[in-house]
Amino acid sequence: MSGTEPEAAPRSPERASSLLGLPTPCLLLDEGRLRANLARMRHHLDGLGVAFRPHLKTAKSIDVARLAMTGPSGPATVSTLREAESFAEAGVRDLTYAVGIAPGKLDRVGAIRRRWQADLSVILDSVEQARAVAAWSRASGDPLPVLIEVDADGHRSGVSPGDAAHLLAIGRSVGEGAALRGVLLHSGDSYGLNDPEALAGAAEAERAAAVAAAAILREAGLPCPVVSVGSTPSARYARSLTGVTEVRAGVFMFGDLFQAGVGSCTVDDIALSVLATVIGRRRDKGWIITDAGWMALSRDRGTARQAVDQGYGVVCDGSGDFYDDLIVIEANQEHGILAVRAGSGAALPDLPIGAQVRILPNHACATGAQHDRYHVIGADGRVGAVWPRINGW
Amino acid sequence: MSGTEPEAAPRSPERASSLLGLPTPCLLLDEGRLRANLARMRHHLDGLGVAFRPHLKTAKSIDVARLAMTGPSGPATVSTLREAESFAEAGVRDLTYAVGIAPGKLDRVGAIRRRWQADLSVILDSVEQARAVAAWSRASGDPLPVLIEVDADGHRSGVSPGDAAHLLAIGRSVGEGAALRGVLLHSGDSYGLNDPEALAGAAEAERAAAVAAAAILREAGLPCPVVSVGSTPSARYARSLTGVTEVRAGVFMFGDLFQAGVGSCTVDDIALSVLATVIGRRRDKGWIITDAGWMALSRDRGTARQAVDQGYGVVCDGSGDFYDDLIVIEANQEHGILAVRAGSGAALPDLPIGAQVRILPNHACATGAQHDRYHVIGADGRVGAVWPRINGW
Repeated sequence: MSGTEPEAAPRSPERASSLLGLPTPCLLLDEGRLRANLARMRHHLDGLGVAFRPHLKTAKSIDVARLAMTGPSGPATVSTLREAESFAEAGVRDLTYAVGIAPGKLDRVGAIRRRWQADLSVILDSVEQARAVAAWSRASGDPLPVLIEVDADGHRSGVSPGDAAHLLAIGRSVGEGAALRGVLLHSGDSYGLNDPEALAGAAEAERAAAVAAAAILREAGLPCPVVSVGSTPSARYARSLTGVTEVRAGVFMFGDLFQAGVGSCTVDDIALSVLATVIGRRRDKGWIITDAGWMALSRDRGTARQAVDQGYGVVCDGSGDFYDDLIVIEANQEHGILAVRAGSGAALPDLPIGAQVRILPNHACATGAQHDRYHVIGADGRVGAVWPRINGW
Repeated sequence: MSGTEPEAAPRSPERASSLLGLPTPCLLLDEGRLRANLARMRHHLDGLGVAFRPHLKTAKSIDVARLAMTGPSGPATVSTLREAESFAEAGVRDLTYAVGIAPGKLDRVGAIRRRWQADLSVILDSVEQARAVAAWSRASGDPLPVLIEVDADGHRSGVSPGDAAHLLAIGRSVGEGAALRGVLLHSGDSYGLNDPEALAGAAEAERAAAVAAAAILREAGLPCPVVSVGSTPSARYARSLTGVTEVRAGVFMFGDLFQAGVGSCTVDDIALSVLATVIGRRRDKGWIITDAGWMALSRDRGTARQAVDQGYGVVCDGSGDFYDDLIVIEANQEHGILAVRAGSGAALPDLPIGAQVRILPNHACATGAQHDRYHVIGADGRVGAVWPRINGW
């Protein structure tokens, strides 16, 4: 699992020791891997001739956003209005808030648009919301840009793509004051797959549903300049995006064990890890105890339903080289229990108290959210910059 | 499930509407329930003649700490050194950091002791740690108080209580510079039970292991003034704590669905909830979508292994009255999907877009950690104070 380096390569004590000054647990971000993940996605989407509106819900960081966006003012996607405020303050002007709008949040949306002259759009999937947004737009004199959320595959929100009457009713209600800008979809199916053909099929289904919904609006004379799709697996495996104008994706920037299980990345692409310190050993049980419990790793056990259950994470040494089959088998609030994967013949490494290890997460969005900053590992393997995160709502 | 109020009682629109000004998702804390939970535990422990050292890892709040502690300067238990620093700054002077100490953290422990004249003790379970702590104590001239962690039941860290030689070796190593103060245990078994007799048995096993370990140290002439046990279920169900000097417990202050499943509280005792807003409906699927996903609720699914799986949480209206069998069946990052529990004949309530609901959490420690503050509901059912949380390490 050590990727491009030969298996017998010596571990690098200098790189490991460069982390020793950091209090643990803490969050590490490998800038080289981040940049490679971004370049790969950009190249892929450029080849498909589609714009990229990176989803910043995973990174929640202006420093990462500046590397991810195609320009300093966007476009970008956010999952909270606090993200929208922070990114707008930092100069991002083209933002989509991609969670169904509650009418009670419209004043805050309007304030962001006014204060930073930001083109912040919202999404919705009901006539009720559309009427509220249209009424708010008329009252405020600010025609809010709206994308109608269309359900790609029955996993979450959205208008059924075959329900033309509902889609048109929403579109017409939006038009009574707000500015209909298009349709937005998210492929939930893609997260449950791990076969390239099936993933390409999910991406095509998402594309087809998006294009069909846009056609319904346009044929009725309603505007639909934007056709937005997105999920890391469907973005990665899409073979054609004809008719789509933009792609949203976020977790691909960091990668994680769940995405590796899907096939959206390899474990060697994962840019995010949690640095932990060994605080105990139970030789009777074959356990090593660290100070990274679920508070540092999150409670996410997304790989539990995949072919390979990675526990609460895969364990590497301080410089990022994998131990054989060592995972976090259990987590208490501030304790992580490391053990060799069940059925493996690998030996438990003899780690002393105070040794530092790096743990690759199941789910980068969830693990990142447990921390307020990234410690960034530069090209020299040393930790340099600290990048703050924008948590909360 | 609506507790003391009759089932036919009208819902209280005024109490619900008092929350409407709060941006969602956010964390609510019912001060009356908190105070009742604290009074119940204090009364129980007073009856058992044992001191209370509340664990502040759940609340991470000085405002809650002041209600929970028997005095303004403690005693209290913490799970991170950031908690120790914040509580010491706020006047708490008697603190136990109840996670096995890493030698690299000793300078920070020493700084807290010096800066605030705090009696901050640490725990450990190896000769290696004991030697490091003793050496640090000699070098700094500050004999650090140490509790030896003893394993109550094989769930995490600690010296096996039957391994007298190991216990004594650690105790003697501590004594070469540091100050041996006693033993500390945590009943992991109790979390897997839900029968009062079995819980009383787990509490007695924890007590017996603690007293036996203390006896081993004392018979060898080593000091052991403190015999510390703790977990919410074992504290709640202990019938005798003879030989124990203090009890640590934390999650009981708020309660949660997991503890209700164990039997440590009822659902009507739960003081913590997440306020959420309805942002969508899928009548075809029987779903209501809210803006409280796993980012607001946490990924904790602790009730999944209990007799009643509560999904990602149980749903109440804005004033805290239960809907029939309505739970959060699935959670995405910023979307929660509400539905009637499988097999229930209850009807899905007809909640409009913008309606606010309260969600009781699986695990108060995990849900609390997703937020940076509490909105405190006072006796009048209205939200008044905002109490900050001390997250991070």
